[in-house]
Amino acid sequence: MLIRCAVYQKGQKIAEIEPQHIHEYVAQPDCFVWVALYEPDTATLASMQEEFDLHPLAVEDAGHGEQRSKIEEYGDSLFAVLHMLEEDKGELRVGALHMFVGRNYILSVRKGAEKGFQDVRARCEREPELLERGSGYVLYALMDAVVDRYFPIIQSIESKLEHIEEQIFANKSARENIEQLYGLKQKLTTAKHAVAPLLDALTNLSGTRVPPACVGMQEYFRDISDHLQRLNQTLESVRDTIATAISVNLSMIALQENETTKRLAAYAALIAVPTLIVGIYGMNFDHMPELRWKYGYGAVLAVMVAIDGYIFYLLRKAKWL
Amino acid sequence: MLIRCAVYQKGQKIAEIEPQHIHEYVAQPDCFVWVALYEPDTATLASMQEEFDLHPLAVEDAGHGEQRSKIEEYGDSLFAVLHMLEEDKGELRVGALHMFVGRNYILSVRKGAEKGFQDVRARCEREPELLERGSGYVLYALMDAVVDRYFPIIQSIESKLEHIEEQIFANKSARENIEQLYGLKQKLTTAKHAVAPLLDALTNLSGTRVPPACVGMQEYFRDISDHLQRLNQTLESVRDTIATAISVNLSMIALQENETTKRLAAYAALIAVPTLIVGIYGMNFDHMPELRWKYGYGAVLAVMVAIDGYIFYLLRKAKWL
Amino acid sequence: MLIRCAVYQKGQKIAEIEPQHIHEYVAQPDCFVWVALYEPDTATLASMQEEFDLHPLAVEDAGHGEQRSKIEEYGDSLFAVLHMLEEDKGELRVGALHMFVGRNYILSVRKGAEKGFQDVRARCEREPELLERGSGYVLYALMDAVVDRYFPIIQSIESKLEHIEEQIFANKSARENIEQLYGLKQKLTTAKHAVAPLLDALTNLSGTRVPPACVGMQEYFRDISDHLQRLNQTLESVRDTIATAISVNLSMIALQENETTKRLAAYAALIAVPTLIVGIYGMNFDHMPELRWKYGYGAVLAVMVAIDGYIFYLLRKAKWL
Amino acid sequence: MLIRCAVYQKGQKIAEIEPQHIHEYVAQPDCFVWVALYEPDTATLASMQEEFDLHPLAVEDAGHGEQRSKIEEYGDSLFAVLHMLEEDKGELRVGALHMFVGRNYILSVRKGAEKGFQDVRARCEREPELLERGSGYVLYALMDAVVDRYFPIIQSIESKLEHIEEQIFANKSARENIEQLYGLKQKLTTAKHAVAPLLDALTNLSGTRVPPACVGMQEYFRDISDHLQRLNQTLESVRDTIATAISVNLSMIALQENETTKRLAAYAALIAVPTLIVGIYGMNFDHMPELRWKYGYGAVLAVMVAIDGYIFYLLRKAKWL
Amino acid sequence: MLIRCAVYQKGQKIAEIEPQHIHEYVAQPDCFVWVALYEPDTATLASMQEEFDLHPLAVEDAGHGEQRSKIEEYGDSLFAVLHMLEEDKGELRVGALHMFVGRNYILSVRKGAEKGFQDVRARCEREPELLERGSGYVLYALMDAVVDRYFPIIQSIESKLEHIEEQIFANKSARENIEQLYGLKQKLTTAKHAVAPLLDALTNLSGTRVPPACVGMQEYFRDISDHLQRLNQTLESVRDTIATAISVNLSMIALQENETTKRLAAYAALIAVPTLIVGIYGMNFDHMPELRWKYGYGAVLAVMVAIDGYIFYLLRKAKWL
Repeated sequence: MLIRCAVYQKGQKIAEIEPQHIHEYVAQPDCFVWVALYEPDTATLASMQEEFDLHPLAVEDAGHGEQRSKIEEYGDSLFAVLHMLEEDKGELRVGALHMFVGRNYILSVRKGAEKGFQDVRARCEREPELLERGSGYVLYALMDAVVDRYFPIIQSIESKLEHIEEQIFANKSARENIEQLYGLKQKLTTAKHAVAPLLDALTNLSGTRVPPACVGMQEYFRDISDHLQRLNQTLESVRDTIATAISVNLSMIALQENETTKRLAAYAALIAVPTLIVGIYGMNFDHMPELRWKYGYGAVLAVMVAIDGYIFYLLRKAKWL
Repeated sequence: MLIRCAVYQKGQKIAEIEPQHIHEYVAQPDCFVWVALYEPDTATLASMQEEFDLHPLAVEDAGHGEQRSKIEEYGDSLFAVLHMLEEDKGELRVGALHMFVGRNYILSVRKGAEKGFQDVRARCEREPELLERGSGYVLYALMDAVVDRYFPIIQSIESKLEHIEEQIFANKSARENIEQLYGLKQKLTTAKHAVAPLLDALTNLSGTRVPPACVGMQEYFRDISDHLQRLNQTLESVRDTIATAISVNLSMIALQENETTKRLAAYAALIAVPTLIVGIYGMNFDHMPELRWKYGYGAVLAVMVAIDGYIFYLLRKAKWL
Repeated sequence: MLIRCAVYQKGQKIAEIEPQHIHEYVAQPDCFVWVALYEPDTATLASMQEEFDLHPLAVEDAGHGEQRSKIEEYGDSLFAVLHMLEEDKGELRVGALHMFVGRNYILSVRKGAEKGFQDVRARCEREPELLERGSGYVLYALMDAVVDRYFPIIQSIESKLEHIEEQIFANKSARENIEQLYGLKQKLTTAKHAVAPLLDALTNLSGTRVPPACVGMQEYFRDISDHLQRLNQTLESVRDTIATAISVNLSMIALQENETTKRLAAYAALIAVPTLIVGIYGMNFDHMPELRWKYGYGAVLAVMVAIDGYIFYLLRKAKWL
Repeated sequence: MLIRCAVYQKGQKIAEIEPQHIHEYVAQPDCFVWVALYEPDTATLASMQEEFDLHPLAVEDAGHGEQRSKIEEYGDSLFAVLHMLEEDKGELRVGALHMFVGRNYILSVRKGAEKGFQDVRARCEREPELLERGSGYVLYALMDAVVDRYFPIIQSIESKLEHIEEQIFANKSARENIEQLYGLKQKLTTAKHAVAPLLDALTNLSGTRVPPACVGMQEYFRDISDHLQRLNQTLESVRDTIATAISVNLSMIALQENETTKRLAAYAALIAVPTLIVGIYGMNFDHMPELRWKYGYGAVLAVMVAIDGYIFYLLRKAKWL
Repeated sequence: MLIRCAVYQKGQKIAEIEPQHIHEYVAQPDCFVWVALYEPDTATLASMQEEFDLHPLAVEDAGHGEQRSKIEEYGDSLFAVLHMLEEDKGELRVGALHMFVGRNYILSVRKGAEKGFQDVRARCEREPELLERGSGYVLYALMDAVVDRYFPIIQSIESKLEHIEEQIFANKSARENIEQLYGLKQKLTTAKHAVAPLLDALTNLSGTRVPPACVGMQEYFRDISDHLQRLNQTLESVRDTIATAISVNLSMIALQENETTKRLAAYAALIAVPTLIVGIYGMNFDHMPELRWKYGYGAVLAVMVAIDGYIFYLLRKAKWL
């Protein structure tokens, strides 16, 4: 689906054009074309390939499913793949933004993600002094938007982890904790796949030798790189914390087992001792004077209660009950 | 076994030749020879070594058993070893594709893998404008085919892992889970040995200084490298997930032990308490008024049932039963 | 909040100036301006940006919340972010010191940390021969102060860890130990985030090509780097020790379980054996001579005590009791 | 002990000489001397040092005990240390081969290993066209022999590991499994110490700048390096598998504990329920009609058997028995 | 405390001098001054700083407490810190040797370690042909002595580990084993801090560009580096083994728990079965023929013994007892 196809000159939009005229504008040195597609069919991609003269391997990647997040150079042009993360009913949905960037064009292809980039385009058009820098600036603006959207996702992972930590030390719902930690780990892996390869790829855009479209934009791309490093650091911490939390949870389960055993033993003692006593007076000896006493029965019951009371007191003191 | 031996010029097959004429065609600068062998005997390999003037160390490797996946340069020619993975009755079978590549020849030796590369040859012959690039393109096409066949293998590992995860959290068949996780780990190692060394080796074919046969093909080899990186990333995640799953499974076993203990204790309580009561009325005191009551026996039975009912209610509430 | 705004020449303070005059002094080549802010509002930051001609991306970072500790070059000027750690009621509070450093100015922005740098300024003013080196020396002095304040924080983590170790091997309060180890791990992560990225960033200031403001100061920055390496080494050891302590604690819990089980079994044996004996004499056989003995009852009680005494002796010897 | 001392020219042995004449032949540019020692005493080493003009630090290393496997350059000459692994009654014995290599000499010193290199010398002498390459080729041939002898050692580790795996999943002899896994890990470390440092060292012999004695031999040393990488990969896998096997074994122990507990509980139930019933009929109530029935006793016994039968059936179904 | 202050020329000691004359001799190009201090006070250090013109940051480090082991260049001079390890009543005490090395002086400062370097000085003076190389050789000799003293320390760690291993598999004193493994890990960390940073630092002295004082000494420093690598390798193995031993010990505890449970159950069975039987004959049925038999009592006792005998036999066979 074609979302927008516009031509810009000196940071100002000069026209919205039909896709079939793109190659005419791309040929002009002083303006650039910005095209946005959403889940295009093969035919649309093929026509774009022709209009922009895109490299077949890059177009093949864009047509296929799951791609690594990456930035590749094909001659003077760039092909970038960014993962888009969206939370949907507690699950992380992974979409993608593919971008083809040349000296005077940028083609963005959004796939499987709901939220578009209308706001980015609007802000760019409000700042013509920055948009004047051309397609490299648009690349920056789109990447920056994608990366900014990672932050709430990862903060939600962090806060969920904090919630589980509380549960663990409150000694509650050990089974659920493990299951949630495992689920969190999966999300973490998904986020990691979005962040880490992109971070590697960005070093090529913030170094000294950069592709023509990105010349003079190094500090901007370094800023994105800085955000990604912050995210990456957080992900590493979360990963480490999850591993620790799983092993701590196991310790808590072992401790609980220990306490269960002690409590059971305590109750067993409270029953076993009187059982022995009643056994004694169940013996059939001819000469057991207590059996003849009038209050023998009551006395034995009283003794049993007293002994159990004392055992109960001891166990309480030892914190077994 | 010789599968095919053909000469190509300008991307077109010009002849199928006998092996003993190979050296004549290899000497011609404007065409290239493509030979495919399947599990050749020593004599065949020796004759090929002579025809193509192959390096003895490379031929020795090809003659031997298990090799690392690798790409080695011998002067101007290349020797590449790729692992071929095939699933066979739930086991991963490892075959190999050895390739000797020179400026105007490519010799491929398939070993221990069932599926051949007839489809690759057919597609190459349908695209003469690409095949015109020579032996480097054939090398790319064969490598691409081998790597593409890794994807379903690794996806099957992933889906098996997901199945085990469900079992773990459904708290079922802990023993079988461990055994399957262990088996999966073995498969993973096999896949890793196919992917990781090849990824390292490919950097030599996609950089700035490449062997003569691969000049101008860098973007193609980078594309394979990209696929391998994607596979490698998946393998790393799977590896990490298996480790987590094993430790989570241990936690689930500990939890189950905990629950077993509680359930046992619950049943023990339901029996121990009445046992104590019947012990009381088994005592031989002369003066135990209840023993004389007409409905004493019935009353005691009723009390025992009532107490057990209450204990049962308490245990249910505490989720021990 | 503006803390101080002063101009220095040849290592001597020559004037305290109003912020709006800063740009006049910055333009003079032979003096430098040192401005210190504490949690400035957006307007103050904006005016500073104008006075010093700061890069908008750096100012944006300084305006925002949590940043990685880092040192970034913007043309000839530097933007440094250092985490400030302060212990507050057992919690680690993370503040930040942002610094903008140019050839003849340094602007420091302190955020969220209580302790200021008046002492650093005072010491600098007492050593004009060092202060003469200009803004690079002030950068060094401030960084050195921040890093020196890490030491007591990390020593407190170390001594807390030692305390927990003693608890573990004294076999006390396993639950509390885990919880404290977990808390310590969190603090460690916080400290690590302060130290590790800064260490990476510092290599740029102690190498051969350094920003103009830091020329000739390499040995000083290497000294900070050396302190950070020492801290980092300690953090790594602590991290490793915490992991070991968690797994050792689990072993101790398992051992305790083992001992609990043995002790329970011991007590069970002391009760079960006499229970069997009294059962024997509760049998209703017509011909049980012992039942008729005068001292049968006493003899049985004596035998039971003797047997229990022997069992007790055996269990003590086996260290089960 | 001197094993052999021979002079070679153009790949042919021209003489076996006395050690004291070595320096005369070493001084001739067109031949090379190959000396083999076995556990030489200090005097022999000292005389060799003089004859070959060896570096004192290298000779000191050769005289001492345990050395890292390594390849060091001393000016134009090389000093190489290779570990020799030999299996002896289930233990790994570590010997060493020290080699001093110059442009026209090679001195090999074997220590603590039984198997010599007569076969290598014999094969070299049968291939004069290769031996003609000089001392570098002999170095290659000896290293290749040492490395080739690693393969059966490491295969034996692998097959032992597979045997233990079977034991683990057959749930047999958990204690023995741990002990054997631990022993295997030790062997692995020994093998790793032989392989890994040598792999690092070999990069210096297969790169572009190599010591004079090894010029033109790069492809041969790369071949050894390739073998070592294959071994190293195997060792890494084995190491990983051992770690997994240890943790899987722990899970199996926990599972077994779980099953033991269930089985015990099952038997306990089979005894406790009848015990309660007999207790009931041991009560002394005056009015217990069943006690008066003629077949009461038989009926109770029958009921007890029936109940136990039913419990047994339930436990079987639940797989507790 | 000043230990010695001597001047050397051509490898011969020419004079012992007073500290205040040092600067005169340092100024002479053909001799070098060797000063050794033991725990100097601030004044002594300050006077040394003046005599040798030492860098203030290096002197500050030497005055302070705990330092990383390191080698730093200050202009043409070197500042080296080496940890000295000494075993004291089972504890590792960490001392330090600080060295300031210039073209014609070396100042060594020993701190917190008992054993001095008189033997090193004596050996140096006995080998004037080596001492002639100047301060760089003394640096080497002192470093070599410090590193040589690491070997017995680390061997003692290794042998202690072997002792614990035996205990683990003899299934003895699990609690003590953990505690000792933990203590060993601490020692290991201490040793690692001495060895690892020094190894990194030494690459600067054994490469192609070295400080003036060490020119021509590269092979000597590489020899120290080789020793450190050997130590480092051992430390890595020990570290790995300790981790494995801790987890193996946990498995052994779990196994022991398993066996304890089985043994308890066995004894429980031996008591529970007769208890049921005596309960049967404690029932008050009117018609229980056995009760009337003359040898009923004896028969029941005999049956109980027989049954227990059989159970005992079964349990023995199953290795539960």
